[in-house]
This record gives sequence, C-alpha cells and structure tokens, in this order.
Amino acid sequence: MALIVQKFGGTSVGDLDRIRNVATRVKSEVDAGHQVAVVVSAMAGTTNQLVSWARDIGPMHDAREYDTIVATGEQVTVGLLAIALQNLGIDARSWLGWQIPIRTDDIHGAARIDSIDCALMRERLAGGQVAVVAGFQGIAPDGRVATLGRGGSDTSAVALAAALQADRCDIYTDVDGVYTTDPRIAPKAQKLDRITFEEMLEMASLGAKVLQTRSVAMAMRHNVNLQVRSSFSDAPGTLVVNEDEIVEQEKISGIAYSPDEAKITIQGLPDKPGIAASIFGELAENHINVDMIVQSAASEGQQADITFSLGRGDLDKALGLIGGAREKLGFRAIDSDAAVTKISVVGTAMRSQPGVARAMFETLAERGINIEVISTSEIKISVLIASEYTELAVRSLHTAFGLDSED
Amino acid sequence: MALIVQKFGGTSVGDLDRIRNVATRVKSEVDAGHQVAVVVSAMAGTTNQLVSWARDIGPMHDAREYDTIVATGEQVTVGLLAIALQNLGIDARSWLGWQIPIRTDDIHGAARIDSIDCALMRERLAGGQVAVVAGFQGIAPDGRVATLGRGGSDTSAVALAAALQADRCDIYTDVDGVYTTDPRIAPKAQKLDRITFEEMLEMASLGAKVLQTRSVAMAMRHNVNLQVRSSFSDAPGTLVVNEDEIVEQEKISGIAYSPDEAKITIQGLPDKPGIAASIFGELAENHINVDMIVQSAASEGQQADITFSLGRGDLDKALGLIGGAREKLGFRAIDSDAAVTKISVVGTAMRSQPGVARAMFETLAERGINIEVISTSEIKISVLIASEYTELAVRSLHTAFGLDSED
Repeated sequence: MALIVQKFGGTSVGDLDRIRNVATRVKSEVDAGHQVAVVVSAMAGTTNQLVSWARDIGPMHDAREYDTIVATGEQVTVGLLAIALQNLGIDARSWLGWQIPIRTDDIHGAARIDSIDCALMRERLAGGQVAVVAGFQGIAPDGRVATLGRGGSDTSAVALAAALQADRCDIYTDVDGVYTTDPRIAPKAQKLDRITFEEMLEMASLGAKVLQTRSVAMAMRHNVNLQVRSSFSDAPGTLVVNEDEIVEQEKISGIAYSPDEAKITIQGLPDKPGIAASIFGELAENHINVDMIVQSAASEGQQADITFSLGRGDLDKALGLIGGAREKLGFRAIDSDAAVTKISVVGTAMRSQPGVARAMFETLAERGINIEVISTSEIKISVLIASEYTELAVRSLHTAFGLDSED
Repeated sequence: MALIVQKFGGTSVGDLDRIRNVATRVKSEVDAGHQVAVVVSAMAGTTNQLVSWARDIGPMHDAREYDTIVATGEQVTVGLLAIALQNLGIDARSWLGWQIPIRTDDIHGAARIDSIDCALMRERLAGGQVAVVAGFQGIAPDGRVATLGRGGSDTSAVALAAALQADRCDIYTDVDGVYTTDPRIAPKAQKLDRITFEEMLEMASLGAKVLQTRSVAMAMRHNVNLQVRSSFSDAPGTLVVNEDEIVEQEKISGIAYSPDEAKITIQGLPDKPGIAASIFGELAENHINVDMIVQSAASEGQQADITFSLGRGDLDKALGLIGGAREKLGFRAIDSDAAVTKISVVGTAMRSQPGVARAMFETLAERGINIEVISTSEIKISVLIASEYTELAVRSLHTAFGLDSED
C-alpha cells in the first residue's frame, strides 16, 4: 500500500465528462489499495476568464483581490471531483488552500508555499478517504487567499507530496510524458522513460512546457518521486529521478527550443571597467531578464562589442533604455534581431562525453546554420540561431544525437 | 455619519459595467461621510451554472461539496467589486464568509446564521475602509463552506446589519421598491413609501419576490431599519418599518398573488377523531407543505369533506399518497384542481376595519369569480380562485381598495 499524490491539469478536468474520467483514474489507485490525494487545476478556460475579468474591471489591480477571484476556479473543480468520486462509491472530500492550510508568503499572485499542515488530511487518508485538493492556492499570513502564479498546481502537488512524504507524485497532463524534443517539430521524437531532475529543470526552463520549473526544483530538493503521464491513456509516463538512479547515460536526453527570443548587439563600447555592469544593472532594475551574454575582445582602439539575448516581449523596452543611455555609455551603434531562437542540447551524459559541443556545432554548420551566441552549463549547451532555421536545427540535432525512433 | 449596509443582487452585479455602477453607488455613501459594508450576490446566471454542474456531475450529491462549488459565485463578485471601488480611489477589501467569520449551523445548502464576529470589520470600517462581503455564505462548525439557500444574500445583509448595529440596511434590487401589487398585472400599481415588517412578511410569503421571507423575519426580530430600492435609479425606495412608526394606516397595503397552487378535495371521509391528523401527518412526513384547509361540517351520514391547497409541484405526489391510503382513510372520492391561484389582501389597516373581508368577497362576486377556499390571519385575507381569473381579480381588488394611482 502506497500513498500517492495525483495532479490533473486544466485540460484533464475541462468538462464534466473529463472530471468523471479523472474520478475513474483515482478509483483505480484506490482499488489497488493505495491512499490517494488528488490535486486539481481549474477547468480549462476558467482561469483565463477570471483573469480577464479581474484585469478589465479597472486599471488598478489589488493582487489580494485578484487572488480571491482566480482561486475560485480550483474551488469549483474540487467540489465537482469530490462528488464524482462519491458517485463511484468512494469516500472523498474537497480541501481548499485555507482549510488544510497551505501557508504561503505574502507575495499575492506569485506566492511561495511556506508550510503545509497535513495532520488532519493524513488521518483522513489513513481512514480511506480520498483528499481532493485545490491546486494553485494557499492562505497568506494576512488570512487572505493567495495564488502561486500560473502553473502553480504542479507546485501544489509536489509540495503536498513532500509534506505527506508520498511514495509517488503523478503529474497527469495532455501528453504522455517527457519527449526527446517537441513531437510537433520532430515526428521521430521519443518518449523518455526516465529523466534526471537536473535535465528536467533545464528542459522546463528552456521551453518544454510539461512541468513548471519551480515544481521540478522543489521535487529535486525534497526528493519527491515524480512521474509525468497522460490523463487520456494508460501508457507509462516519464519518471523524473535522481541522477544516481540512472546507471549509465550514454545519450543526451533531449533537444529543447525556446522560440520567443530576441538579440541585441551594442557595438563600439569603450573598454573600461564597469561598463557591462552599468548596462545590465539598468535592464535588471527595469525587470528585463537577460539570458545569454557574449563580450568580444577589445580591439586595438580600446573598443568592445556586447551581444545578449532577452525575451522578445522586452526588446522595445530594452532598446529604449539603452538608446536613452547612449551618451553615458558612449557606444558607437546598436543593432537588434527580433527573430532568433534558442536551441539547447540537454543531458547529464555530456559530463562524461566531451565531444557533445563539437557534434552540435558541426551538425548546425553542415546545414549552413550560423550560431550567433553560445552558452553552456554542466548539462546543457544552448545556441542562438535565426528563427527560420528552428525546425531544421531541432530535427538535425535530434538525428545527430541518435534520438530518432526507429519506426 | 451613519453605518450603512447595502445589498446588491445578481442582476445589479450582472456584468463588469454593472459592478462599476454599484461601486459608484457605494462611493456616493462614502462621500456623504458614511461607513459602508456592501453585501453582494453572484453575477446573474453564475449560480444557475454552478448548481447545474453540481447536479449534473452525478446523481449523488454531497451538500458540503455543493456549497463549496456554488459559494464561488459570490467570491468572484466581491473581488471584482473591491477592485472597482479601489479604482474610484476608495479603500476597500473583500470578505469571504469564513474570513469574517459568519458562523452557521451544519445544514449545508440551507444553513442558518448562528453568529457573526465583526470586531475586525468594525475596526476597518471605522478606519474608512469599505467592507465588500460575500452574501449567501458562511462557515459551518466542521470548517466547511456553508450556503444559506437561494436568496440567502438578503439574509446575509440583514444579519450583518444586525451584528454591526447598522443605522440602515438598503436592499438594492431591479425594482424600485415594494408595490401595492404586481405592476405587470395592474399597471396602476403604486410604490409604497412604507410597509410594516408584518405586512412585508405576508407579501413575501405570498409571492411578492422583492425580499426573501427569512430576511424580513430576521430584520423584524433585530429591528433592522430596512429599505428596498432600485440599483438602476435614484428614486427613493420602500422603507420596511415597525408598525408603531406608521401613524395611521387607512388603506390596506397590497394585493399579493401566488399562481402555482393546486387544490385537493377528499369527499366522504368518515367523521371520526384523528382522521385529519392522519392525512396531514402523512403529507408532512413526505415534505409536502399544505397551506389552506377547509373541512365541511359532517353531514347526517357521519361523513365530511376536506379541501386543502398545496404547491402545484407536489400535487401528483400528494394524490399518490392519499390514493394509496384510501382503505385506511375510508373516503368516497378524491378530486383535484391544478389551476388555482391564491389571492391575498394584506394590510395592518384591516385590524381596525372589519369590512375588508366583505369588500373583498363582494368585489370578486361582482366579477363572477368563485371563491373556493378562504383563510385569514390578523393582517391578511387569502382566497383560492380558478387561475384564469387571476389578473381580473388582482386588478379589481386593487381598484376596489383604492390603491390605483391617479395618473
């Protein structure tokens, strides 16, 4: 007998039939003798409707009231799922964030979970009752409803699994696991049976939308046994595990891509100390995240070029800020490109295989794809390329690293 | 400076524009220097949607989960209205039932308010903050969300006004007050400036849908200064007051009608003790409310007839129950009519004017309208008539009792 946390996203609970389908999946774990806590999101579309009301009612926007409004989506789903379970003859009750309670900090709209007091829930689980838990929500120190930000239900599930010391945390979604790359681009993409937390973290932050980054980090920290699987099929999913649970990793794990990138090059900067800090400090103060940075060696004339990437949505704002500081910075010219994509090769295997970077650059060069910026970490190599080559680059790398399925 | 409770129903908060309109109405009381607590319902249509989901998800139906689901409607409205108020420069916060808390009994789906702890709210009100309170909801002893049943927001408002010892409780609705009768039937109906609690209670229970009966009874008990007025106009509404606040009442106050009635006559019952108790006990056990009852004098042959009225929706069930007990009861025949209407003349004036009953019966007789059953209380006379005469009866009585407007 195990204690299992299951999480179902908005698509999986999108209408009454799908909620009944979720109830059936929960029942099969109960029938197998397990204790089950189910975390659910709002029905697909509901949160968007609630968010747009909260935005449209007026330009000023109290995050505590925003949270009060949007948290209702999950409240509806837990009630409906509890009733659906009862109709299958299963003892079940809904739990709202404040009822458990799931205590958060006071950053309304993007709160972090501080603690979960699950003594009473554990008692009920031991008595055979299924806990149906509202994802995405908790209660802030001021006694108001707090939400965890978009995708927060994954985090709720992982945090609950950690608090309950659950044997497994199954994240049900509309895909049946984590793939070597996006199957819409590379039809030969394969589902991974296992992936390490570190790899999953890179994949998630690089644009694979299967799991929210924060939830992966939390699962890694608390050593939660995580599985990504499909709500709509019985196929086994992908296990997210510690690195020591994967005996030997010969291949890299996947190719991720992040399409909405932009690039800025500042040419002819005076090569003096503090000039980079001055640029990036200004951007950070204006909440612009800069990702990859390359600084060219200073030429004879004591001038340097700096190139960096950032989110496409921030491009105009960044250009305005830098342009406004032209006199202070003393650069010669500024150049930008709003059509670049970041392509990343991810895998713990590259720790023992020094040739990965070379293989990646050669593969792209053979297709005539120019690399504009490079950045690396211990388990990933990312390059910035022109967006028009995205699909070609992903497919070529997928093949080159031996990830294509055989059928 | 006064403390005012305002209540806005579902139509008044039916969309974002209407919620902004409500915010403007709240602002005008704040600008006049008053402390304001606003109780709101769910946006029109929302509760019906939530109820139908809760019903459709499965035939079994846990009232605690039902409450969890349907209470979200008000939760959305309070958040939106708080933001709308803030956008008008007014300090405001939303309060959910469990946050105040409004403590109820454990009859989920039709809970009664036990107590309201408004110490913190009173402090905030004194500090100039508007309290935006979710109507219809509270927290049950088990810590679960409880709802007060349909129309419960009126009760929330009156209970809050009593707890806060508010100077006034204004119920905003889509009509501009209490009328002498339904203006859709009698175009000469007039708005009443004042009505007593007792009369309002009779009007409400007799089909005038302006206020929920329970809220009127509660306002009477706690002597809450109640006013019914329109969300969509600035016209003064109707004050619901104690009888001693109306110096002299010469006219009756109104003509109410309740269209969805049915009538059953049981003929040839043995005239022995306990036979009526046996019939009505059986119906009560099956949750069928019987309203007006007439028992004819026993004839020579020791037999009596009993006629009574009941809700039309209960007719078939009642006929089945009585038919099934035919042997036990020993009656001769049973007869029913599903097309009867109850017409009532209501007014404290009839205490001092003995001629009201006669005037009512004569007026109906002059139009050839047959009276099937009569029942009276101290301040109302009700008769059952064939439904086809409803409009004619209402209009004739309205004229006969001098209630027609002159224009």
